Amino acid sequence: MLEKFTDEDLQQELSQIRGADEERIKEAQDYTLKLVAPPGSLGKLYSLGWQLAGISGKLHNDIPKRRIIVLCADNGVVEEGVSSAPQSVTVSQAINMTRHMTGMSTLAKHFDVDVCVADLGIAADYNCPGIEDWRIRKSTGNIAKGPAMTRKEALLAIGTGIRLAKNAKKDGMDIIGVGEMGIGNTSTSSAVLSVLTGAAVEEVTGLGGGLTSDAFAKKKQVIRQAIEVNQPDKTDIVDVIAKVGGLDIAAMCGVFIGAAIERIPVVIDGFISIVAALCAYRLNPLTRVFMIPSHVSVEVGYLIAQKEMGLEPFLQMDMRLGEGSGCPLAFQIIEAACSIMNEMASFEEASIDDGYLTEVRKVM
Amino acid sequence: MLEKFTDEDLQQELSQIRGADEERIKEAQDYTLKLVAPPGSLGKLYSLGWQLAGISGKLHNDIPKRRIIVLCADNGVVEEGVSSAPQSVTVSQAINMTRHMTGMSTLAKHFDVDVCVADLGIAADYNCPGIEDWRIRKSTGNIAKGPAMTRKEALLAIGTGIRLAKNAKKDGMDIIGVGEMGIGNTSTSSAVLSVLTGAAVEEVTGLGGGLTSDAFAKKKQVIRQAIEVNQPDKTDIVDVIAKVGGLDIAAMCGVFIGAAIERIPVVIDGFISIVAALCAYRLNPLTRVFMIPSHVSVEVGYLIAQKEMGLEPFLQMDMRLGEGSGCPLAFQIIEAACSIMNEMASFEEASIDDGYLTEVRKVM
Repeated sequence: MLEKFTDEDLQQELSQIRGADEERIKEAQDYTLKLVAPPGSLGKLYSLGWQLAGISGKLHNDIPKRRIIVLCADNGVVEEGVSSAPQSVTVSQAINMTRHMTGMSTLAKHFDVDVCVADLGIAADYNCPGIEDWRIRKSTGNIAKGPAMTRKEALLAIGTGIRLAKNAKKDGMDIIGVGEMGIGNTSTSSAVLSVLTGAAVEEVTGLGGGLTSDAFAKKKQVIRQAIEVNQPDKTDIVDVIAKVGGLDIAAMCGVFIGAAIERIPVVIDGFISIVAALCAYRLNPLTRVFMIPSHVSVEVGYLIAQKEMGLEPFLQMDMRLGEGSGCPLAFQIIEAACSIMNEMASFEEASIDDGYLTEVRKVM
Repeated sequence: MLEKFTDEDLQQELSQIRGADEERIKEAQDYTLKLVAPPGSLGKLYSLGWQLAGISGKLHNDIPKRRIIVLCADNGVVEEGVSSAPQSVTVSQAINMTRHMTGMSTLAKHFDVDVCVADLGIAADYNCPGIEDWRIRKSTGNIAKGPAMTRKEALLAIGTGIRLAKNAKKDGMDIIGVGEMGIGNTSTSSAVLSVLTGAAVEEVTGLGGGLTSDAFAKKKQVIRQAIEVNQPDKTDIVDVIAKVGGLDIAAMCGVFIGAAIERIPVVIDGFISIVAALCAYRLNPLTRVFMIPSHVSVEVGYLIAQKEMGLEPFLQMDMRLGEGSGCPLAFQIIEAACSIMNEMASFEEASIDDGYLTEVRKVM
């Protein structure tokens, strides 16, 4: 694990983030106007190309090297009965990810995507060399009764996430995706989202992995209680994560920050992933420049976080697995966007006089 | 071109379509319940896998060989000024598709998708061996003044589409996509859709490749006039296509029918593609079994056709290019669905006791 990561370290890291290369975005937009198609007709394939140009400072980009970083940690709140699955599933599935047996890791293997499984706080002991050991503590505390962790621990987890993004850059990754494994983490995510946005617990809480209606009512009650007991300061993101969040959310938040520092595009998976993205965005809105949403999660809170950041996911898969399972799909679409910028012909090359488009452009 | 294709031939072809293999769908659904994830949590990745099982009669499917069939034809209605692009763009882009210079064909080349460009009725003369010559006539007539074509011609175009799907099967294709190129074909598609559904012209007409507000008003007026002048019989699909449709729509409709006969999954692209799919669906609702939607077109009429067939597209790309440009993207997602069915581990293989899911399954 990291030895030290303080509030000052976090501020220092956040201050390194620079915004988009606006000049290159403009150049990319002008470039797509010359491609042999009506202006704007390739929609998000174009806008993804513009975004990548703003991130890299290059007109033409490609994403051959991809990694999904999966932050794994247990959540003490499971003792309240908020989850359908037992806590042991966290460690089982973390191990299974290294063996490419789970949903996300099956897709990752199929599409040649690297998977980094990092333990931030799995409760169980295990022996699996494929999992990177960054464990800060064994599980968080039960947020219904007290804080999930100390501020120091939350900072360490954020710092670890930043480190993992920097490692991805060192390893030559062109893009990363952010996933998680941690039974109970839709509860902690809903709690964080409710505090950050002021939305009622009912508005941000869904069924997670699957719950009966009694268990669902219980889950909402537990989240309300967690906020009541801990009284997190909504203006202090680290405080919110430490009190009602989790080690996975903290580290995911760190990955988004690290990706922004290293200027690597970073794909958001589902609900937990977007709550962590929102934490990073609140810490520094410039992190938004590097984020690419993937699919609309079935979890109800997803839309609230998405809306605040003005993100527009392009996949509607009715998925609610987590793990980072939307990322391998998104990478394929982003690769398509790269191929449009890199391989599609211009009007000039295609020998079509595009003079007729002058009027169209005027009205768009 | 085809020598002959009559109403009797069409009825004969339609009568060959068989529905889904329901037993295999049930087997596929049971299979996904055993995969190491909460029931249903992979959403459309699962349901696509079930659909493919119902089509092929096999539990495990794969789509290594893919083809986009692009039906090209001109529309006489362009003389009314309903389009921003000149008619010559139809032939230019048809040729450019064979050179992989356009949006769809760039993506197709990148993802190793075969492209079949078929001329059903391009107006111009040209010399391009890469385009398959199935031309029935040079452009249709101006629907604002009379029928687009004769019933005989419409039937020939439908028969040609069926033939092209059969050729894809002969060539070993595992999946096909349906695209088009024909300046003016959003106007004909809106006319067909308005007649078939009874929806007002305003509800089914969009900006196509891009129009000024004056030209947009004109487009709607022309479509209303076309329906008024031709009085198509909404219960007779061939009559509707012949009077206010186009050779591209007719042939695309044929491809959907042919795919159903040959039991090949067939991907719908955007607005024109889904109007042709609706024509096939009205001729025989069983064609629906083989259709896979891709992206939600920006064209307003798309949703009306989608809703009638109960199709749920999984991409939201804000695209409105046509050509079949949504198909290469969809193929990647369908490939992902195949990999889940073929490569993901079961609870048993992953050594997780899934007893805790019993209650979850009960409530889903």
